[in-house]
Amino acid sequence: MLYLVGLGLSDETDITVKGLEIVKKASRVYLEAYTSILLVDQSILEKYYGRSIVVADREMVESNSDEILRDAETVDVAFLVVGDPFGATTHTDLVLRARELSIPVQTVPNASIMSGIGATGLQLYNFGQTVSMVFFLENWRPASFYDRIKENRGIGLHTLVLLDIKVKEQSLENMARGRKIYEPPKYMTVGQCAQQMLEIEDEKQEGVYGPESLAVGAARVGGRTEKFVAGTLKQLCDADEALGPPLHSLVLLGRRAHELERDYTREFAIDKEIWNTIWNRDYGKQ
Amino acid sequence: MLYLVGLGLSDETDITVKGLEIVKKASRVYLEAYTSILLVDQSILEKYYGRSIVVADREMVESNSDEILRDAETVDVAFLVVGDPFGATTHTDLVLRARELSIPVQTVPNASIMSGIGATGLQLYNFGQTVSMVFFLENWRPASFYDRIKENRGIGLHTLVLLDIKVKEQSLENMARGRKIYEPPKYMTVGQCAQQMLEIEDEKQEGVYGPESLAVGAARVGGRTEKFVAGTLKQLCDADEALGPPLHSLVLLGRRAHELERDYTREFAIDKEIWNTIWNRDYGKQ
Repeated sequence: MLYLVGLGLSDETDITVKGLEIVKKASRVYLEAYTSILLVDQSILEKYYGRSIVVADREMVESNSDEILRDAETVDVAFLVVGDPFGATTHTDLVLRARELSIPVQTVPNASIMSGIGATGLQLYNFGQTVSMVFFLENWRPASFYDRIKENRGIGLHTLVLLDIKVKEQSLENMARGRKIYEPPKYMTVGQCAQQMLEIEDEKQEGVYGPESLAVGAARVGGRTEKFVAGTLKQLCDADEALGPPLHSLVLLGRRAHELERDYTREFAIDKEIWNTIWNRDYGKQ
Repeated sequence: MLYLVGLGLSDETDITVKGLEIVKKASRVYLEAYTSILLVDQSILEKYYGRSIVVADREMVESNSDEILRDAETVDVAFLVVGDPFGATTHTDLVLRARELSIPVQTVPNASIMSGIGATGLQLYNFGQTVSMVFFLENWRPASFYDRIKENRGIGLHTLVLLDIKVKEQSLENMARGRKIYEPPKYMTVGQCAQQMLEIEDEKQEGVYGPESLAVGAARVGGRTEKFVAGTLKQLCDADEALGPPLHSLVLLGRRAHELERDYTREFAIDKEIWNTIWNRDYGKQ
C-alpha cells in the first residue's frame, strides 16, 4: 500500500494519530520537501517518529517515482507531504503511476494552507482561485497571477497568494559545471510578494489592485508563533520584520468582504484608522 | 485559554497529536455538532479521548457562548470542530467574543473538506468560491448558489458544493407547541443536490450548466470508505446507491480543467466513454 500522509502546517505534533500509526509501521518513509516545508528540522521528525526518513526531492518524485513505489504491492510505503497530500499536482502524478502498477493507495488528509488561511478571519467561502508567486529574475517575471487575481477581483473575491520557496537549487554556474552544490534555501516574504505585485500592476496598468488595496500577510499559519499583519499592499511591502521568519503567504481582499471579516482582521492592522477608512470606501460591497 | 481544535473529516484517529494532548488536559471539552459531523458516534470520541464531551448545538454557540468561555482566562477550554476550526462563520464569532473578554485563543488546524476534496484529483488551484446547497422546501428554494456557480463557470473554475445537514431540527408543529422533540438527522445526498441544481437551471434558463455538465460526487472524504463517482449531473441524480452513506459533497467541473485532472477523475466515471466524449467536447479549454 502507498500511504500519502499529510503532516499539517507547523511541527512534528501536527500529524494525525492515524498518520503517525502508519508512519511508525511503514517499511519505508519518504518526505516530500520541495513544495513546502515544516517549521522543524528533519531530525526532529525522525526522532519523533522513531524512524529514519528519505528526503524525496523534486527529481526523485517526478522522474524516479518507481523507486518510491518499489514493492508497494506487498509492503507499506509512507509518503509524507507537508500540509495536505493533494495540495500539489506532483502527488496526483504519483498516484496515477501507482494505479498503473496496481498498487493500492490511501490518503491521510491534514490541514492545508488553503483551509488554514481561515485563521485570518477571512471566510473561506469568499475566496476565489489560489495563485502562486515566484521569485522574479531580471529577465523572467512570470505574471500569470495577475490575470487570475483580475478574475477573482472582478467577482469581489479574496485571493490567497502562495509564495515561492527555493530548496536545493543550484546556481547556473554550478549546474553548468555539473557540481552538486546547492544554494541555501530561500523563502519569499510577504514584503517581496507585495512589491512584485505592485510592480506588475505598474506595468499592466489595468487597475486590478493598487498600493491602497487591502491585504493580510500571514506567517507560520497553524504554528504556535502564527502571525498576521493587515494593511495596504504598500504597507505590507515593509511588514517583514513584524511577520518574522518563514513561511509567509498573502491574501488580497475582495470587495465582497463581510463586516465580520472586517472586525476580525482589523485586530491585525498596522494602522487601524487607515484600515477602516479604506474598508469603508472600497470594501463590504456586494 | 480557548483552544479551537479541528477533528478532521472522518473518525476519532483523525485528530492531530497536538489536538489530542489539548483535549486530554482541558478542563472542559465542547463538540460543535451542527455544521458538520464525524462518521463516528460521540461515545467513540469520548472513549478515545478518555473525556466526557458537551455537545454544543447552534443555539449554545450562537447565543450562549459565554457559558463555553466561562473562566477561560484561567482554565483551558477545548472547543472541537469537525474538519478545520475556521470552516464556518460561527467560530469567528466565538473568537471575537473571546477577544472582548481578553481570553487568549489558540487554533489547532486540521483537514477541511475544502482541501480534502483534492482527493478527487481535481486541482485545488482550479476551484473558485465554494457554495452551499440547502434542502428545498415547497415554498423555499434558495438559489443564490446559482449566481455563484455562474461566476465560477464564467472564468472556467470548478465549484465545490457543500450539502445541507439537518441535525436537531424540530418539526413546525413541535416548535409551535414548544415540544423539544427533534426530527431524525437528515443529510443531503449528491443525487438530491444534482436534482436541485437541474431544477434551478430549468427555472433560470441562463445556461450556467445542464444535464450533461460533468461533476464528481464525493462521499465520506478522507475516511477509509471514501468514494467518488464521476458523471454528468443527470447521471449523478441516480448515483446515491453507488456513493453510499453520508456525508456527501459535489464538485461541478469548470472548463479550464487540465488533462491530468481528466485522467485522474475518469477512473471514477460511471461511464468512461460518456465522460471522455463530453470532456473532449467541453473541457480542457483555457
